[in-house]
Amino acid sequence: MASPSDQRATIIDGKAIAQTMRSEIGEEVRFLSEKYGKVPGLAVVIVGNRKDSQSYVSMKRKTCAEVGIKSFDIDLPEQVSEAELISKVHELNEMPDVHGILVQLPLPKHINEEKVLSEVSLEKDVDGFHPLNIGKLAMKGREPLFLPCTPKGCLELLKRSGVTIKGKKAVVVGRSNIVGLPVSLLLLKADATVTIVHSHTPDPESVIRDADIVIAAAGQPMMIKGSWIKPGAAVIDVGTNAIDDPTRKSGYRLVGDVNFHEACDVAGYITPVPGGVGPMTVAMLLRNTLDGAKRVIEQ
Amino acid sequence: MASPSDQRATIIDGKAIAQTMRSEIGEEVRFLSEKYGKVPGLAVVIVGNRKDSQSYVSMKRKTCAEVGIKSFDIDLPEQVSEAELISKVHELNEMPDVHGILVQLPLPKHINEEKVLSEVSLEKDVDGFHPLNIGKLAMKGREPLFLPCTPKGCLELLKRSGVTIKGKKAVVVGRSNIVGLPVSLLLLKADATVTIVHSHTPDPESVIRDADIVIAAAGQPMMIKGSWIKPGAAVIDVGTNAIDDPTRKSGYRLVGDVNFHEACDVAGYITPVPGGVGPMTVAMLLRNTLDGAKRVIEQ
Repeated sequence: MASPSDQRATIIDGKAIAQTMRSEIGEEVRFLSEKYGKVPGLAVVIVGNRKDSQSYVSMKRKTCAEVGIKSFDIDLPEQVSEAELISKVHELNEMPDVHGILVQLPLPKHINEEKVLSEVSLEKDVDGFHPLNIGKLAMKGREPLFLPCTPKGCLELLKRSGVTIKGKKAVVVGRSNIVGLPVSLLLLKADATVTIVHSHTPDPESVIRDADIVIAAAGQPMMIKGSWIKPGAAVIDVGTNAIDDPTRKSGYRLVGDVNFHEACDVAGYITPVPGGVGPMTVAMLLRNTLDGAKRVIEQ
Repeated sequence: MASPSDQRATIIDGKAIAQTMRSEIGEEVRFLSEKYGKVPGLAVVIVGNRKDSQSYVSMKRKTCAEVGIKSFDIDLPEQVSEAELISKVHELNEMPDVHGILVQLPLPKHINEEKVLSEVSLEKDVDGFHPLNIGKLAMKGREPLFLPCTPKGCLELLKRSGVTIKGKKAVVVGRSNIVGLPVSLLLLKADATVTIVHSHTPDPESVIRDADIVIAAAGQPMMIKGSWIKPGAAVIDVGTNAIDDPTRKSGYRLVGDVNFHEACDVAGYITPVPGGVGPMTVAMLLRNTLDGAKRVIEQ
């Protein structure tokens, strides 16, 4: 049974770790620039005027600038046709200074996301979502060109916090294509014993209570209680849920899939929301872009 | 705790179920033949003279004949070059009467298996091992053209025995590209809570004891004892291990990864070895070939 102890969890500071990573990336970018006179390039494609998408995209572009990655800004109107978008993607595929292509999701309803994403050249698929990349991620002895950013960020947080993965019991809550599924495959490749819990798991609590490592990616605000956590476990909370909070000016606040305050009394390590996994996703996108660029520039 | 009961496990008769499936396939082949004047075609490619490979291949060809699928026999010498083999594969990719291509593994050491297999047209990859097929198998909302034969056979055995998968705890022992990994993905798609156990799992016994469904695919003769099984669990034993047996004329006998006699006293359902999963693999290969042919012929 989990029980509170005097020892509170070590907070995994994703913001600080992401900052360290961005510095490392910045140094490598400078090195490339000095040695080859070239810098990595990331095309960030946005369609329409969704507020949330625009804020994500502007953060990605700003962070590119911070580390010296050249950002190619493609802003298309809501009404753009699927064919026009695909022809833009093809154009970016051909541009030698573009090493990574990110199409911000969701796309407007009249556009088939799967179709558009599968047109991104494998060598520039810095999101790592192409089914061929996922297949190689799943298979022993195969390596994808790019790992999906958020899952890669989760593992990086564990590694940089000194949490051993090999031989540990890891439970992933949620099985989305973007987080739950690929993070399970990554943990399996890192030799954890992996269990995937989802909406059809009758008793998630008992499974989670057995885990040395919990990756919470269900999108359910504070579903994981402190009493569900094994004492000393490492908890990575990918959830970012807005809940009403009349005490805030905005009227809401962000919470994770884990009850952070309860979990702090039980877990060995835990990420906060915000400031945990979030900043890592962008750092990993830049890392993927840099790695893609190095494959081209250093060849 | 597992304890022996008076009730012995229901034996899942893979041989009989595979026979039923072959009859179903045979009927559909006859229907195609009568309606369109065409039958499915499977190219079985073998390189060299390995005894075990030859026996598998001859069984596959024989079973094709039994159900009316036209078998294209490609027998290449041990010394064939990688380029020659690939050009043979390309030729089969182009042949309209060939709907499935199976390259029997292992290939001789001088040939890169991964490279050869990735040359098989996706539309004819009846083994389902192409990384793009595995990626689509892993991802929610995507469907591969073909499911790998042995994993598909395991699920078919459960379904035809009336074992519910949705909401159940399934443990897969082993994480090979051919069985363990894809069967885990299939069980996840069927809404089981899936745990993958492997050589780095410190205490496989305690994980397995919790499972409603056990898929044993570790290649370790009789590693899973009766006392490891939860009473009433469904046990699918994919292992086919030859162990010394001086009482047999051959000097050996085949056993699974599960101690069958012990498990029979505890499990609710169990497959024997031989006569469990083995016959299903060939039946599924024929089913995949038929499905591939239907996509072409009925279009």
